[in-house]
Amino acid sequence: MAVCTVYTIPTTTHLGFTQKKQVFIYNRSFKRGGGGGSFSTRPCVITCSAGESQTVVIGLAADSGCGKSTFMRRLTSVFGGAAEPPTGGNPDSNTLISEMTTVICLDDYHSLDRKGRKEKGVTALDPRANNFDLMYEQVKALKEGKAVEKPIYNHVTGLLDPPELIQPPKILVIEGLHPMYDSRVRDLLDFSIYLDISNEVKFAWKIQRDMAERGHSLESIKASIEARKPDFDAYIDPQKQYADTVIEVLPTQLIPEDNEGKVLRVKLIQKEGLTYFNPVYLFDEGSTITWIPCGRKLTCSYPGIKFFYGPDTYFGNEVTLLEMDGQFDRLDELIYVESHLSNLSTKFYGEVTQQMLKHQDFPGSNNGTGLFQTIIGLKIRDLYEQIVASRSAAPAAAGKA
Amino acid sequence: MAVCTVYTIPTTTHLGFTQKKQVFIYNRSFKRGGGGGSFSTRPCVITCSAGESQTVVIGLAADSGCGKSTFMRRLTSVFGGAAEPPTGGNPDSNTLISEMTTVICLDDYHSLDRKGRKEKGVTALDPRANNFDLMYEQVKALKEGKAVEKPIYNHVTGLLDPPELIQPPKILVIEGLHPMYDSRVRDLLDFSIYLDISNEVKFAWKIQRDMAERGHSLESIKASIEARKPDFDAYIDPQKQYADTVIEVLPTQLIPEDNEGKVLRVKLIQKEGLTYFNPVYLFDEGSTITWIPCGRKLTCSYPGIKFFYGPDTYFGNEVTLLEMDGQFDRLDELIYVESHLSNLSTKFYGEVTQQMLKHQDFPGSNNGTGLFQTIIGLKIRDLYEQIVASRSAAPAAAGKA
Repeated sequence: MAVCTVYTIPTTTHLGFTQKKQVFIYNRSFKRGGGGGSFSTRPCVITCSAGESQTVVIGLAADSGCGKSTFMRRLTSVFGGAAEPPTGGNPDSNTLISEMTTVICLDDYHSLDRKGRKEKGVTALDPRANNFDLMYEQVKALKEGKAVEKPIYNHVTGLLDPPELIQPPKILVIEGLHPMYDSRVRDLLDFSIYLDISNEVKFAWKIQRDMAERGHSLESIKASIEARKPDFDAYIDPQKQYADTVIEVLPTQLIPEDNEGKVLRVKLIQKEGLTYFNPVYLFDEGSTITWIPCGRKLTCSYPGIKFFYGPDTYFGNEVTLLEMDGQFDRLDELIYVESHLSNLSTKFYGEVTQQMLKHQDFPGSNNGTGLFQTIIGLKIRDLYEQIVASRSAAPAAAGKA
Repeated sequence: MAVCTVYTIPTTTHLGFTQKKQVFIYNRSFKRGGGGGSFSTRPCVITCSAGESQTVVIGLAADSGCGKSTFMRRLTSVFGGAAEPPTGGNPDSNTLISEMTTVICLDDYHSLDRKGRKEKGVTALDPRANNFDLMYEQVKALKEGKAVEKPIYNHVTGLLDPPELIQPPKILVIEGLHPMYDSRVRDLLDFSIYLDISNEVKFAWKIQRDMAERGHSLESIKASIEARKPDFDAYIDPQKQYADTVIEVLPTQLIPEDNEGKVLRVKLIQKEGLTYFNPVYLFDEGSTITWIPCGRKLTCSYPGIKFFYGPDTYFGNEVTLLEMDGQFDRLDELIYVESHLSNLSTKFYGEVTQQMLKHQDFPGSNNGTGLFQTIIGLKIRDLYEQIVASRSAAPAAAGKA
């Protein structure tokens, strides 16, 4: 379908200089509807408009149904403006574009459609159902300032739709099941996040969604979780060891033997020693603290709120933990919590609270998932600004030498 | 022996005005050496030099051998200058006088000497072995700016020695077994402290002192503690409910099943709602916090240090708890802890650390007993200054009205 004009791809990009931008697409034989659709991966490049600077690439890994889209909405909101699907394109596009960010869903790199997976007996979690060569080449091209024609996996039909043109954004977020699975893709990431929902919470959420809202039976939900588990454990879960930050969602410890999954304990696991990322801390950097902000100044209803902060190790890396158990009664009281957190990368006092209040209808706004997603959004903005600043400083420094 | 010149005691003192100061002594028949010595309690008053202002009275209650004298040395050090026994007086005097403070030991109000107690079968803890009428009258006189002739209980001989003249000081500390036992004496106190050593720690300390240093047997130590316990529980322990602040000394929780009493967990229980006393807090006033300052910034050897801060109730009163478990490796690192505590009533940054370093040879300097005793010393200085300021403001305000 798409005509592929092949150009040589320059191996290095002279940053800070305007250059020819190229569109990186793939040469494929597209089969629609016929089932067992697959793409070949001979990439090709077409020239495009000029790009000023390299794209900052963020990876967000999580299982499906784990709140990635909410996270993305919080992230893009930090940069201002709404995130929309590409205008005039496929209404089932998974892409969200705002002024600063483009979020692409890695399901678009499925090499097998729903029927194809069924025929071959592989799940979407299985690397064999995904085209990592193409994922790598297109993310690399976008990072180098080149537009690409990215495939679309249609979640409604389960088919592979015709591709869409993706321009290199300032910030590219690749979200999905495998952003850190392939080492080549992983190496392209400037920052990576893993959303780690514990089995108990995942189960409670699925029951709530699939049983209450979609009328599935408890048995079918259990069966579907069990069926996914081996591949999840083999291919998705191990990626968390590479993540720069992990948001771990666990059952509360404030209510004995709670299994409802309504009150959550959320851990923000932040890697130490990164160039552009300084972990958020509570009160006193480097020490170990538990903090129950409820008391004579802040009244909390049962079961209250409890924070934990301290150093730890995670897959052999030094990390800083920040944990919130419980939920806010009144979101505007979050300012009280915000005022005791440091390294938040806010631009003004109360920005975390303002962001949370702006989206108080989003899921998780009254607990640690919303709080930490918002904080990670601010940290990514900070990271982006630091990278841009270091790039503009580098040629200036070279000129002085 | 002493001649008693009786004057009428004015019932009110016109503060801020120079007035006749009076010495309050007692008319007694003194029997030395004959055993069973006792004093009658008809008080009398002699005039003396002029006093400018009322004395601030502090009560410190604790069992014997519980570190009251160390506490007193820390307290007087806060005001500067050394505390000495009255010059030229009885070398066995229990009184310590410095420029600002006079510390009197309430053992001096024993109405029965050692032999007398033995004959009557009462311990020194028993109110019947103590003269509360005289204690009340003399503390009241001192508070009103009148000198008194206070008896002396000789701890060496176990006898009642001839009295010594005590001038009304700026700050009078009455320390001993019963400063809050008699409601009349209690009502004279501007601030009260109870040193509450847990049975486990008391036992460990006694073993260390009496067995290791004095050669007593373990059985005799156990027997002596058991013998004291009923009277202690009946007459001493109940006073802690009246204390404005309690220093509770407990075994560490950092070492499982530790009974050595070397590593201590010390609680500072501070009453809320007092006019001249604002409780010390950690990080965030009114919330509940545990803090392990050891980490990447402060290296602690085993078992480390753990702080707790939070609101609580104590005998029906709202209190603020501050707890320290563990001990400092290096005392100069205390500045790191001090910098995170608020309402310390210091006059300059680091004053707590400076005071602790000045007396690092005192018992408890590396743990919560020394830290909290030092803090209480600073709080008492603050309290004294506030009381003096409010007194000088009061006549001025009256003059304006």
